[in-house]
Amino acid sequence: MLDAADPVQLTQALVRCPSVTPAEGGALALLAETLAKAGFDVHRPVFSAPGTPDVVNLYARIGEGAPCLVFAGHTDVVPEGDPSRWTHGAFSGDIVDGRLFGRGACDMKGGVAASVSAVLRHLAACGGRPARGSIAFLITGDEEGPAVNGTVKLLAWARERGERFDHCILGEPTNPDALGDMIKIGRRGSLTGHIAVEGKQGHVGYPHLADNPIPRMVKLLAALTATPLDEGTPFFAPSNLEVTTVDVGNPTSNIIPGAARATFNIRFNDLWTPQTLEAEIRSRLANAGAGDTWTARFEPTNAVAFLTEPGPFVELVSEAVAAATGRTPQLSTTGGTSDARFIKDHCPVLEFGLVGQTMHQVDENVAVADIVGLTAIYEGVLARYFAAF
Amino acid sequence: MLDAADPVQLTQALVRCPSVTPAEGGALALLAETLAKAGFDVHRPVFSAPGTPDVVNLYARIGEGAPCLVFAGHTDVVPEGDPSRWTHGAFSGDIVDGRLFGRGACDMKGGVAASVSAVLRHLAACGGRPARGSIAFLITGDEEGPAVNGTVKLLAWARERGERFDHCILGEPTNPDALGDMIKIGRRGSLTGHIAVEGKQGHVGYPHLADNPIPRMVKLLAALTATPLDEGTPFFAPSNLEVTTVDVGNPTSNIIPGAARATFNIRFNDLWTPQTLEAEIRSRLANAGAGDTWTARFEPTNAVAFLTEPGPFVELVSEAVAAATGRTPQLSTTGGTSDARFIKDHCPVLEFGLVGQTMHQVDENVAVADIVGLTAIYEGVLARYFAAF
Ligand SMILES: [Zn+2]
Ligand SMILES: [Zn+2]
Repeated sequence: MLDAADPVQLTQALVRCPSVTPAEGGALALLAETLAKAGFDVHRPVFSAPGTPDVVNLYARIGEGAPCLVFAGHTDVVPEGDPSRWTHGAFSGDIVDGRLFGRGACDMKGGVAASVSAVLRHLAACGGRPARGSIAFLITGDEEGPAVNGTVKLLAWARERGERFDHCILGEPTNPDALGDMIKIGRRGSLTGHIAVEGKQGHVGYPHLADNPIPRMVKLLAALTATPLDEGTPFFAPSNLEVTTVDVGNPTSNIIPGAARATFNIRFNDLWTPQTLEAEIRSRLANAGAGDTWTARFEPTNAVAFLTEPGPFVELVSEAVAAATGRTPQLSTTGGTSDARFIKDHCPVLEFGLVGQTMHQVDENVAVADIVGLTAIYEGVLARYFAAF
Repeated sequence: MLDAADPVQLTQALVRCPSVTPAEGGALALLAETLAKAGFDVHRPVFSAPGTPDVVNLYARIGEGAPCLVFAGHTDVVPEGDPSRWTHGAFSGDIVDGRLFGRGACDMKGGVAASVSAVLRHLAACGGRPARGSIAFLITGDEEGPAVNGTVKLLAWARERGERFDHCILGEPTNPDALGDMIKIGRRGSLTGHIAVEGKQGHVGYPHLADNPIPRMVKLLAALTATPLDEGTPFFAPSNLEVTTVDVGNPTSNIIPGAARATFNIRFNDLWTPQTLEAEIRSRLANAGAGDTWTARFEPTNAVAFLTEPGPFVELVSEAVAAATGRTPQLSTTGGTSDARFIKDHCPVLEFGLVGQTMHQVDENVAVADIVGLTAIYEGVLARYFAAF
């Protein structure tokens, strides 16, 4: 019999659900049952879109009105890859030498379990219901996949129902090395662009009959990175452009190719919007000395840069982290994108979870002590939050 | 019954032999029979090498001692590609509106046929044998393929037998637009190099943990083409470098790739050898500002630049061209490489053949009048040669 107030048991139970996106794998059913039993009003909306699989999500709330503290997360996981490379079964939840193994252990079933266990403990201490305000869970099954039928739709669905949130903690693995290292108070935006340069194919022996696109592509790529985009801001690193691929695909060394393609991705800070950044890039390309023989296409992006300004809520979480770990967490905006970029349109959001070193890797694992520690931190947040807000 | 003194009939007969490299297709057997009947001493050595198919070649000689004029060529052809794209069968030899269609029509069964017919006519006029000196044919079946079991080995085989040549005409299609346009008196060399830049793969969100090789590749490629290699020489165009491909092959725009590859090919004139050119390229790469994170590999090449200096032999062929066409042929070293680069180590060689516009293309064809004209030119060469040398 699962004791859901034990975050280690709950993590094991969740890891044993094979919830590779878009499969629910029993993970959300387990959470729904657990939260309903604790008195939550639980919903599992299924979202659909053409060309993507249907995905189950979970929304649960207990208590009335403001302040409403939300724990957000996902139970879907990336595929385990080659099972033979795992020392412990990818869906085993085995505990060996103090570490719990399995896909999603740190990203982020362990974080989800810690938040659920912490809330159950907090409610038990309050007689089963929040003394005031409310507590909610926003758990998606589509974070690692196309992310079309996940958090964005779940937030819209909740808003449609009249749900209002005051603050959110997203339990993604934010700590680089040790529990307590890092709270993420924002994320950089992400913009991907593609450059195509057209030329004319021909024989290297007759270059005047051909038009090699590669020298122009070289100029364009050099212009992209010639000068930094910015110097960074108080909470953000400098925006960074990486050319991620250049491809011509010409197997024949006596043929001048007819076209060249490149892709770049920019992680940008709060000095930019996707629109201002695209304009800057187009200007750089136009001044690269490559004429007008190129085209650039930018992928639509919803990954804008955002910052949850440090203030009482961030301080409160920092204090809870320091109390449980003895560490003062760094306030950071580094790393990739996360669903926080969607949540920030609904309420202030920060991210704090487990240590992410093994996420998406073979033998993903997390220290049992960290699951326990994270649960204690979330309990500290709950106590402080309903005292302060 | 084939009249081999009719170059159009002979071209048709050769085109109807499906001699796609390395298949002999009956083409060399036909030539062997024709030349033996005319009194030639004919050999068909077969050459082999590990990893390549065996290839039949043909050597034939008539007459004694010097001067020996050699006609060189190949009867192998490139594949026809998609047969449904041909208006006329690729191996039909159909004549429509004055043009003879089929793979090899201009490259270079038409040229081989013209040389054989011209020699038969010349011999008939001399009573069946050269009045003095000798005439030879060096015909390979491995020019369009790996070219390992072809002209190089055939020349070595002949030298081994004590055969000595004084002058050679290679009948490749040299004329850009009309018969008489161009004699090739040399060829540029060809050098192919590969650049590899190593980096470290990682996530675009964590660029400090990765090392993107693409910016260094961009610098290396820019350095390759920053300044011209030379300004050309009296009979050669400037040496020309083309980057033929750049490939990273990274499908994922949030991953910084771990390696980048590029290939370049240089067509170089007689100011360079492969060795001096490799040294120049390595120097440019070393000074590109890309550190020592790259490696360059140069393919072994036997395509050195060579020039057959204009002189009595070139003038004699030019006169024969002018007499038959009313055109003064341009003396050129343009275009790709050819087997002339091997022959030049044995005797002075020039190239003159048909119009090359459709070579290697669908519906390859040649004007019947050009086959006849080329035969007349070769006859004129034979008459002038044995009068002059
Ligand atoms: Zn995650
Ligand atoms: Zn040819």
